[in-house]
Amino acid sequence: MNVKEIAKAMKKDAPQLASTQVEERNKALEMIKASLEEHKEDIFKANKEDLKYADENGVTPAVKKRLKFDENKLHDVIAGIDQLISLNDPLHKILLKRELDQDLVLTRISVPIGVIGVIFEARPDALVQISTLCIKSGNCAILKGGKETANTNKALFTLIKEAAIKAGLPENCLAQAEAHSEIDELLKCEKDVDLLIPRGSNAFVQYIMNNTKIPVMGHADGICHIYVDKDYDINKLVPIIIDAKTQYTAACNAVETILVNRSVAKEVLPVLNAAFEDNGVKMRGTEEVNDIISVEIMDDFHTEYLDLVVSIKLVDDVKEAIEHINFYGSHHTDAIITENEATAKEFMAMVDSAGVYWNVSTRFADGFRYGFGAEVGISTSKLHARGPVGLEGLITYKYQLVGKGQIVADYASGASSFHFKDL
Amino acid sequence: MNVKEIAKAMKKDAPQLASTQVEERNKALEMIKASLEEHKEDIFKANKEDLKYADENGVTPAVKKRLKFDENKLHDVIAGIDQLISLNDPLHKILLKRELDQDLVLTRISVPIGVIGVIFEARPDALVQISTLCIKSGNCAILKGGKETANTNKALFTLIKEAAIKAGLPENCLAQAEAHSEIDELLKCEKDVDLLIPRGSNAFVQYIMNNTKIPVMGHADGICHIYVDKDYDINKLVPIIIDAKTQYTAACNAVETILVNRSVAKEVLPVLNAAFEDNGVKMRGTEEVNDIISVEIMDDFHTEYLDLVVSIKLVDDVKEAIEHINFYGSHHTDAIITENEATAKEFMAMVDSAGVYWNVSTRFADGFRYGFGAEVGISTSKLHARGPVGLEGLITYKYQLVGKGQIVADYASGASSFHFKDL
Repeated sequence: MNVKEIAKAMKKDAPQLASTQVEERNKALEMIKASLEEHKEDIFKANKEDLKYADENGVTPAVKKRLKFDENKLHDVIAGIDQLISLNDPLHKILLKRELDQDLVLTRISVPIGVIGVIFEARPDALVQISTLCIKSGNCAILKGGKETANTNKALFTLIKEAAIKAGLPENCLAQAEAHSEIDELLKCEKDVDLLIPRGSNAFVQYIMNNTKIPVMGHADGICHIYVDKDYDINKLVPIIIDAKTQYTAACNAVETILVNRSVAKEVLPVLNAAFEDNGVKMRGTEEVNDIISVEIMDDFHTEYLDLVVSIKLVDDVKEAIEHINFYGSHHTDAIITENEATAKEFMAMVDSAGVYWNVSTRFADGFRYGFGAEVGISTSKLHARGPVGLEGLITYKYQLVGKGQIVADYASGASSFHFKDL
Repeated sequence: MNVKEIAKAMKKDAPQLASTQVEERNKALEMIKASLEEHKEDIFKANKEDLKYADENGVTPAVKKRLKFDENKLHDVIAGIDQLISLNDPLHKILLKRELDQDLVLTRISVPIGVIGVIFEARPDALVQISTLCIKSGNCAILKGGKETANTNKALFTLIKEAAIKAGLPENCLAQAEAHSEIDELLKCEKDVDLLIPRGSNAFVQYIMNNTKIPVMGHADGICHIYVDKDYDINKLVPIIIDAKTQYTAACNAVETILVNRSVAKEVLPVLNAAFEDNGVKMRGTEEVNDIISVEIMDDFHTEYLDLVVSIKLVDDVKEAIEHINFYGSHHTDAIITENEATAKEFMAMVDSAGVYWNVSTRFADGFRYGFGAEVGISTSKLHARGPVGLEGLITYKYQLVGKGQIVADYASGASSFHFKDL
């Protein structure tokens, strides 16, 4: 079957998966867990092929670490599945129950989104996390992982799908797209795919967003800011900023721009200068910044470096910082360093981002760190799910209305009237 | 200011409106109410100009009824504002509060979406409902109403905006677009407008969806179905179907297709035939239907008539009905007529629509009838809001994280660990 046919078959099976009880979905997760453990040597063997290919193509140790799937990674994904099993069922929850009139009852219940397409980077653990999150939330999923771990993905996917079907889930609950060309096919399945979650580079996510009619959840940019207020604590300053910039530079929640209150610039900038130099971070900034410490002069704050480079700018006060962030930012995660509660509260209220932090590194923006278990991605959209997206972001609701033959004409004429009583 | 400039100014003012307390927003609603009452003669006068123009252009009585804004309509919108004032604040609600680690607290709070563009049909009461819903939910709004009520809209908008600003809301909380050409300008404001809500014809909504990068909430099609099961109650059959088809044919929740269980077709179709003929409804159907009653033969079920026309098809059972609805439907509102609880439950679980009804007319799909007060529209999307959209559909959330200088490196190294305690 090609992607279009797979999506059509999934759409047909989706209501069946949506109707399953949590016991059935948890049973599938248990069987997936058991199968991964039982066949772990096959997975490790497949992973060795991917790593060999990576070596031949000279990938960096950092990338290799991500590609690797060993006993430790297996342990982590198994722990993740255990956590997922322990979570409450997100489906069939009664979100509202209201008697509109006698014998006329409206219920809003949680249901899965339906058919989801997830395109993710070369990380075998991501395949396990995403597929199990979709199973727990009752969503059918088409998965396309990075080609650098094609062998590992295939081994993992085959085990997961077999176990899910053995556990009684519908035939088309999961599918894997392997060729890059299948992404473009997937983008055209707006009739059958309800949601796309692309993860990866800014350009890649932009490409997806611009080339499909399917709703897209995720983020392209991650231009995160830290504002150093005049009431900053010197002991928090360097640890937070160095963590946010260097702990994982390629992450979307790494900081790109530091805004410093002009009144404390002369004391803050030299401290930052020393810390950035110690950590190999290249500094760019406005002329004003260059008057105090030596930086590459620039005046464009739209760049997401994802590298050991940082932009620095001075601002008058928290108001100017908020304006800068709301204008140049990507509404992802932004932090303030201050000991002044009123200033912090103003910042957190007025900055229009999914995450607004006070005296904390921006790197905390992550589903695991928020206690959501795994995440399918981070959303900078303001509709549906915002910030790290776990189980909750994978469900929607429907309204059920049960009556005894009521018609609207009687309510329009005044013969009947609503009494709206929440049950 | 042109629309682009208005949107930019609104985006800047949006955090200020988002930070207002409910008392301030309710005060604005009170002042709007008072102003509409005080200046009602000016509004009625403006409306007379619109009605005169409508008469000159020979609009139908049904349309004229919608354009009219008189003492009765004023009474209704005032009652709507009163209801809105009485509703709880949808903002600043703590949706989650979790201690991630000692002195590291994550809070999810409800916030407005930001800047919303609403394009709606020529109905002056809609302008009042939409603008007051946006104020209560703390959203800035650009409103574009139908040109047939341009004079009434202008009079209403001027009073509403003046009162809102007098009450202390930010200068750019509301704006009105008057020229049709401004819609295309609005579609290009993806940097500053967070959400578009278009109401109107299928073609118009499709046009909006296909020509903007701004998220769109609403529906294009409303292809609603009623399935007559073999266990139907003859007393409910005709009232429900006639109400769903004829009570307001132009509504998106009017029924377009009747699916009849084949085993009862010979008794059901003649009854429907008589009822449809009595009500001037033209019948179209498959050859099989035509063998029992005389219909125009057809076999395409993708059409939304919005008129006194109905499609009829026979199906084997509830399963085939579900498949037909999920394939041909628009995921709006679909109903089953049956006395069999198991069949009804299967239908309501498996039909993938915003509204799934049992023994009730599809015409009940409406914000007022669900007890939401006014509605900004009905969404057939599965993301964010689904079905009739009131206050709740106009908010999102943000995550606030408050710490004492924590950094991710300590959690990555194992020096610190999360304990996730919900507060």
